[in-house]
Amino acid sequence: MKIGVIGGGQLGRMLALAGTPLGMRFAFLDPAADACAAGLGEHVQADYSSETHLRQLADSVDLVTFEFESVPAETVDFLSQFVPVYPSAQALRIARDRWFEKSLFRELGIPTPEFADIQSQADLEAAVANIGLPAVLKTRTLGYDGKGQKVLRSATDVAGTFAELGSVPCLLEGFVPFTGEVSLVAVRARDGETRFYPLVHNTHDAGILKLSVASDEHPLQALAEDYVGRVLNALDYVGVLAFEFFEVGGGLKANEIAPRVHNSGHWTIEGAECSQFENHLRAIAGLPLGSTAKVGESAMLNFIGEVPPVEQAVAIQGCHLHHYGKAFKPGRKVGHATVRTADASALQAGIAKVQALIGN
Amino acid sequence: MKIGVIGGGQLGRMLALAGTPLGMRFAFLDPAADACAAGLGEHVQADYSSETHLRQLADSVDLVTFEFESVPAETVDFLSQFVPVYPSAQALRIARDRWFEKSLFRELGIPTPEFADIQSQADLEAAVANIGLPAVLKTRTLGYDGKGQKVLRSATDVAGTFAELGSVPCLLEGFVPFTGEVSLVAVRARDGETRFYPLVHNTHDAGILKLSVASDEHPLQALAEDYVGRVLNALDYVGVLAFEFFEVGGGLKANEIAPRVHNSGHWTIEGAECSQFENHLRAIAGLPLGSTAKVGESAMLNFIGEVPPVEQAVAIQGCHLHHYGKAFKPGRKVGHATVRTADASALQAGIAKVQALIGN
Repeated sequence: MKIGVIGGGQLGRMLALAGTPLGMRFAFLDPAADACAAGLGEHVQADYSSETHLRQLADSVDLVTFEFESVPAETVDFLSQFVPVYPSAQALRIARDRWFEKSLFRELGIPTPEFADIQSQADLEAAVANIGLPAVLKTRTLGYDGKGQKVLRSATDVAGTFAELGSVPCLLEGFVPFTGEVSLVAVRARDGETRFYPLVHNTHDAGILKLSVASDEHPLQALAEDYVGRVLNALDYVGVLAFEFFEVGGGLKANEIAPRVHNSGHWTIEGAECSQFENHLRAIAGLPLGSTAKVGESAMLNFIGEVPPVEQAVAIQGCHLHHYGKAFKPGRKVGHATVRTADASALQAGIAKVQALIGN
Repeated sequence: MKIGVIGGGQLGRMLALAGTPLGMRFAFLDPAADACAAGLGEHVQADYSSETHLRQLADSVDLVTFEFESVPAETVDFLSQFVPVYPSAQALRIARDRWFEKSLFRELGIPTPEFADIQSQADLEAAVANIGLPAVLKTRTLGYDGKGQKVLRSATDVAGTFAELGSVPCLLEGFVPFTGEVSLVAVRARDGETRFYPLVHNTHDAGILKLSVASDEHPLQALAEDYVGRVLNALDYVGVLAFEFFEVGGGLKANEIAPRVHNSGHWTIEGAECSQFENHLRAIAGLPLGSTAKVGESAMLNFIGEVPPVEQAVAIQGCHLHHYGKAFKPGRKVGHATVRTADASALQAGIAKVQALIGN
């Protein structure tokens, strides 16, 4: 089976590493000459809107998936005429737009911070009056890793901010006094079978994920599964989906969903029976899903800007290095490490060692 | 770091899958257009004796290793002029020739079946008179998976057999009434640090490995480590080496060594903290070695001739599929499965399910 992947970054790379042992082959559509997944399959180097190349991709693969949700909806619509695309264009359309996404949460009875659609500075001012400050203004589409958003704390932050974010459709979200951030990675098969990984505690810095720790029998696991299951079923979703929540007052408020394999699920490569990458491929290929049970205790630490010296990273007991083979650049995710240990205290020791190595 | 690999079969493929997350890149020298590792790196499609291509490979990589021991010694000697080669040409010269290999065992005080160098039919008849029957005649080089050998049970088996095996240098080995076959996979770093995986019980059929089961505190572990350590140190070996033994009368007799990652170590991908593939790469690249400790209980089953339907293989609890992407052909190793479980009884159940799937 040959899988087409829109995007050839580290998620594509890890999909290929997971799928090759299943006998799958890969083609990546990515305009970048140095796309880091390119070495693991065919590289269709072209713009995402090039119908010639999209057609070429569609004709050479059995199905298509994507590794980032900012794929233009037209790209997916076009491809869907010729080849199955998972998750569907409809799921992508909702997940890539914060307004559609939040509206779906509300419709499904999933608690989420207050929000308002913002089409103008006047909309923004009215919404601030209604929701109050602090609040966060986010572009409805194309935001990631803290980009395309601004925290509004006072009236002076509000003035001119709609233009500052590019005068594009935005969403205003009320500030939530959360005590923690967790994410649930789920996978749903073509036949509707759904499995959930354990909830993960996430720590961000300047909007970028730094640390994910897989939890053990988290008291909110069942609630999170209920919420995520509603979304998966409503979208008739196929593949892996990650759902980020705020922990608020002993409950959960929905932050956002990512219709793809997710950074907070990278620990599953070593830390779960079947990784999120293999399970995504199993789901879209119509194969039985794999076990989402944990293997030991795991945490994932991102390498931002640079990968520490390999000889030092691999010397840490239980540390598994994932170097993405990307050029180092400040703020760029260029690798991660998963620390997997037999018990939680060894895990904390391993995390501390990796943190010391990356000066964090 | 870029690694050149002589040979582009499944061992090269699994080396690349293990090394890519370490940030390594790969080039495979293999004359076959459909070499199954080729998709995971650069493919130098050329004969192993083409000095032009060997030079091209040497100039484009940081070091060279190989995935099969039948590499012509001249190939390694030639490469060694331009680039580090691990394991060394000297280690390869001994491991690829059964006479050198057995002579080394004897020199190091490692018990091995009786053996004699056979250069003619007269040599064979004299050796049979001395060692007795049954015995096994094997070509000194180029034998694998039961090829290049003949079991001699009676005088009629002896007649004309030297010519039958091609009138090439052979080794006669006395038959050993073994109760089991085990192998020890070891890794030795450039600085001499050595680690051993747990002993593996192997089951062969017609000379081809069918099943490997990783043992738990095997009573012969320490003895096997002693023997293997002697060989590693004598050869100043760098990389992974597999040592196959016969279990005889509560002790071990050396069968043969393989100077490379080995089929009986494939279970380590899921079943050990750090796989034999990653550890081989760590060793040759001068990185610290990884832990050889087990993760759960594991067994490996080879897929000979064909890979069973993927959807059935992955449906088995704890079963991890490794499809080599090779054309199916009777007698050819085209994939394997590792069953990893929490305990030994679940392991037996998993093995039985995979065996039922492959009709074995």
